[in-house]
Formats: sequence, structure tokens, C-alpha cells
Amino acid sequence: MDWAAQVRSGDVRALARAISAIEDHDPQAEELLEQLFPFTGGAFLLGVTGAPGTGKSTLVDRLAAAYRAVGRSVGIIAVDPTSPYTGGALLGDRIRMQGHAGDAGVFIRSMATRGFLGGLARATADVALLLDAAGKQMVILETVGVGQDEVDIVRLADCTLVLVVPGLGDEVQSMKAGLMEVADIFVLNKAEREGADQLQQQVEAMLELAPARGGWKPPVLRTTATEGTGVPQLVEAIEKFRAHGDCTADRQGRAVAHWKERLQMLLGEHLLERVVQRSGGAGALESLARDVAERRVNPYTAVREMATRAGI
Amino acid sequence: MDWAAQVRSGDVRALARAISAIEDHDPQAEELLEQLFPFTGGAFLLGVTGAPGTGKSTLVDRLAAAYRAVGRSVGIIAVDPTSPYTGGALLGDRIRMQGHAGDAGVFIRSMATRGFLGGLARATADVALLLDAAGKQMVILETVGVGQDEVDIVRLADCTLVLVVPGLGDEVQSMKAGLMEVADIFVLNKAEREGADQLQQQVEAMLELAPARGGWKPPVLRTTATEGTGVPQLVEAIEKFRAHGDCTADRQGRAVAHWKERLQMLLGEHLLERVVQRSGGAGALESLARDVAERRVNPYTAVREMATRAGI
Repeated sequence: MDWAAQVRSGDVRALARAISAIEDHDPQAEELLEQLFPFTGGAFLLGVTGAPGTGKSTLVDRLAAAYRAVGRSVGIIAVDPTSPYTGGALLGDRIRMQGHAGDAGVFIRSMATRGFLGGLARATADVALLLDAAGKQMVILETVGVGQDEVDIVRLADCTLVLVVPGLGDEVQSMKAGLMEVADIFVLNKAEREGADQLQQQVEAMLELAPARGGWKPPVLRTTATEGTGVPQLVEAIEKFRAHGDCTADRQGRAVAHWKERLQMLLGEHLLERVVQRSGGAGALESLARDVAERRVNPYTAVREMATRAGI
Repeated sequence: MDWAAQVRSGDVRALARAISAIEDHDPQAEELLEQLFPFTGGAFLLGVTGAPGTGKSTLVDRLAAAYRAVGRSVGIIAVDPTSPYTGGALLGDRIRMQGHAGDAGVFIRSMATRGFLGGLARATADVALLLDAAGKQMVILETVGVGQDEVDIVRLADCTLVLVVPGLGDEVQSMKAGLMEVADIFVLNKAEREGADQLQQQVEAMLELAPARGGWKPPVLRTTATEGTGVPQLVEAIEKFRAHGDCTADRQGRAVAHWKERLQMLLGEHLLERVVQRSGGAGALESLARDVAERRVNPYTAVREMATRAGI
């Protein structure tokens, strides 16, 4: 069985090898994604975001268990852009996997910061595509909601949960700053804590001020993820959003915007690779970089000249 | 006087307009940078990084004052990738500017997260180039040391200070994870606090384990930035590093690596723009994105075909 077929069958080793190839910008990853692309589009992407300490991992594990209980296969991508190491994250995966021990229907993978060029959001999109091709019906993207990379990641999702918890002070503040617009459902987790009523009022007051989003008004649901309390109601709310017209319209709009960006990126990289090859390869580029660093060559002019020489 | 000439003369409004153009990916920004490029290369780039609460802004203000006292002009770029708003940052600039009131020799600008594609590190590099062309002799890049974007930002610097303070618990831990390799000088700030000796020992123990870096051993300097204590010694250590052979070799190596990356980015964008134009423009791209989103077209195949049609 070839690599693509192995991924499609959900083979965990083949998936892990494919994710590493994506993270390493291995050219084989693109070939693989090209082969798998026709088999994608079936997964529902659920984004889960919130500040550190809001209980994202616990809630995601509960949601995964709930979906497994009704026979749906689940893929989890836990993104932590603040962690420069995947080593620790992988250890975390192993610990979390134990909760779903022996269940081939759950695949968990952590991703941390790698490379430059908005690499994390892009790699996450590719891994989501991979899990989609592997037949995962629910792909959960879990991320700390700070920074542009992470907003880009949840923008991928078909439905986004924003977690808040009582007693995190500037929580509501940070929500105002960007997460408000991506939230389809608010989850007030650790709802047994003092201050839950007040926080709910604050979130609802903010929602009143938010611009209307067609027919969907993001609900505020209460959970205590450690006990599983409120999780069935949350699953129901996600289904309700999924069935709602706004979700469909949003999904389409987001997918087109996402692919427009991705096409530009893929095309830019492809063209660059070809033109650099024609212009003498990486060695010539290095020598040009040296000339620029020593101010012998103007980079903006040099780039235009390279393009002209390549017939562009 | 044209825009480039105004920037070169250090005109604050012209600089501010140029920075906004860079942040907005305005094509005029590239034209301006092309004109200014021959007048760059004179500035010394100082990176200052450390976790929130280590006193970066205060220390940077003290350093700026020290450089001003010996007649050097100073540009400060304060990067905060966790802040999705520049509004608040700009307010902060105004407050900080009051400390240098009436001194045309100090220019402060905050930058927050914008756009995708590693935009922050790139925009920071362009703004540094701008301040360089404007004749700033010291350009200080101030950033919270988490995430890839910020490591990329301090990689630009000719000399990088890493701030640590006693009592921040996982501070040393986070240093291990990436900042260790970029530190040319460690600054133990808030040195009057309990635990300073212990922290110094920890940092020095880590330095013992670090791989040798030619002839330069990063020193650990103590400061109390709020009082200005230790700042003259820090300025002296920066000068010592600057005069050291390693700094020169490092500067050259970093500059070449930086320009190699930048040339690729500029070339990729330039080629992309041309080929998209030839292939029917943004409208055609949007329609292709729709076909991909609806799985009628394989994006990887489509990109190769577009390149072939463009003669690449």
C-alpha cells in the first residue's frame, strides 16, 4: 500500500510521518497532499480557543469522547505557538492519548512553532487536510487565542468555540481584541467558580454590542469540563450551528478565502523555486545576498532584474 | 523635498507615514525602500528581549537616554505580537515620548501583529531599514521573547540583550528554550530583588553548558532600570561586544542570512504578482479558489499549470 493509501486508511504511523514531512517543508508532503486532495472536504473543523488556564485540553478531550460515543472518528491538532519545542508537546500527546487508549478513532497531534512565513497556520491547515483525507469526521483545532497565527488557525474552522473562565481578570478584555469576531459559541468553563454569573453577563453585554451576524447569535454555554458537566449541551449547540444556514455560508466563504491565500502561497513558492534554479540556484542567491548585505546591490532592483531575465 | 529625502532628514511625519505604508503592504513602501537602500547600513541594531514584567521598556528608555547623552541618535521599535491593537501601543508611545520630550534625536514606534506571512518580522526589518536611512545611529528592537516571530526579530539585531528578573519562576526555563542562543549579553534587571544571586548562578551555570561561541562569552550584568543603576556598565558591555571580532563576524553572517530570506520573499511576491496578472488577475484567482474549495480543482495541479502557462 502506498503512503497516500496508508494515510487514507488512517494508519497512525503514516499520518505521523506525513505530519513531520509537512512541518519540515519536505517536498514529498506536497506530492502527498496532491494525491489526497480529492478525498478531502468531508471533515467538520471545530476550532477551540481560549487563554491559558481556561481548560481547553480537558474540554477537547471531553468533546472527543462524546463524538466517539456516537461513532464519529476524531482528529485533534493542539497548537501551541508559545512552545518552541515539540518534544514536550509530544509527551503531552502521549499522556492525553492514554485517555483514549486503544481507540483507533482518535488521533492527537501537537504542533509548536516552526520556521517562518506564517508556517504554523499553514502547517495546521495541511494537517487538517491530512486528517480529513484519513477519514476523521471531526477535526478539532485547539489553540491559545493570542497572536495573528492563532487567529488565522481558528479562521480555518467551520465552527469556533471561545472559552472563558471566571476569575481570569483580563479575559474579557482579551476577547474584545479579536476573538469576539471569530466566536460562534462561547463556552463559560469552570462554571462552578465564583463570578460565573457576572462573566456571563459581561459576555452577553458584549454580544449585544457586536455587529449582527445574519441569523446566528453566538450562545453562551456553561461547562465544567473536568466533570463533563454541560458537554452534551455543548455538542448539541455545535450541531445546531452546523445545521444553521450561517454555518454553511460561513464555511463556504472561509474556504474560498483560505484557498485564495493558499493558492497564492503555493504559486509564489513554485515560481520562486523555478526562477532561483534558472538564475544559478541557491549559491547564486547566497552570493547576491552577500552583495546586498554589503550594499553593493540594491535588493529591490536585483529582484526585478532576476524576474525580467526569467522572462516574467 | 520628496518622501525619501524627508525620511533621510529624519522628518517624524514622513517616517510615521512610511511605517504605516510598510505595515499596510502599500506598494509605495517598496519604492521608498528601494530609494533609501543605498543610504542604509550605518545603524547598529540592538535587540532587547525578555518575558513580560522584566522591565524592557524602562531599560530601553534608560539606554536611549544614555546614547542621547553622548550625542547618538536613537530609534526604538517596540514590538508586541500579543497585542492585536496598535491603538493602545500608540498611546504608550506618546507616554514614552514624553520622557524624551523635545528631543528630535529619539524616535519611538510600536508595532503589533498585522497580516499573515511572517509579516511582523518582515515589517520590523523594513522599519529598521527606514530608521537606518533616517540616520539613527542606534536602532533598538524591543520585543517580548516568545514565539518564532520574535526570535526572528532579534535575529536581525547586531547585539541582543536578554533580560531576566528574580522571582519570575519559569524565566530560566523559557530562556533555555531558544533565547539562550540569541543572547549576546544577559541583563539581570530588578537586581535589588531577593533571589538575584541565585538567578545569576543559574544563568552562569547554563552558560557553562552552552556551546562555545568563538571568543565571546555572554556576560551577566546587573541593572535596576527604574533607578538607572548599572546602565553605564551595560552600555560599556555593548560597546565591548561591538568592538569584538565575533560581533563583526556575527553581523555579517546574520545580514547575509537575512537578505537571502528577504530576497526570496521579494522575488516570490514579485513573480506571483506578475503571473496572477497574466492569468486573469485577482478575479480569476478568486474563481479558482472557489473551484478548489468545492473540490472541482486540485490546487497543487492548478498551480503547476498556471506556472507552465506563464512560461515558468
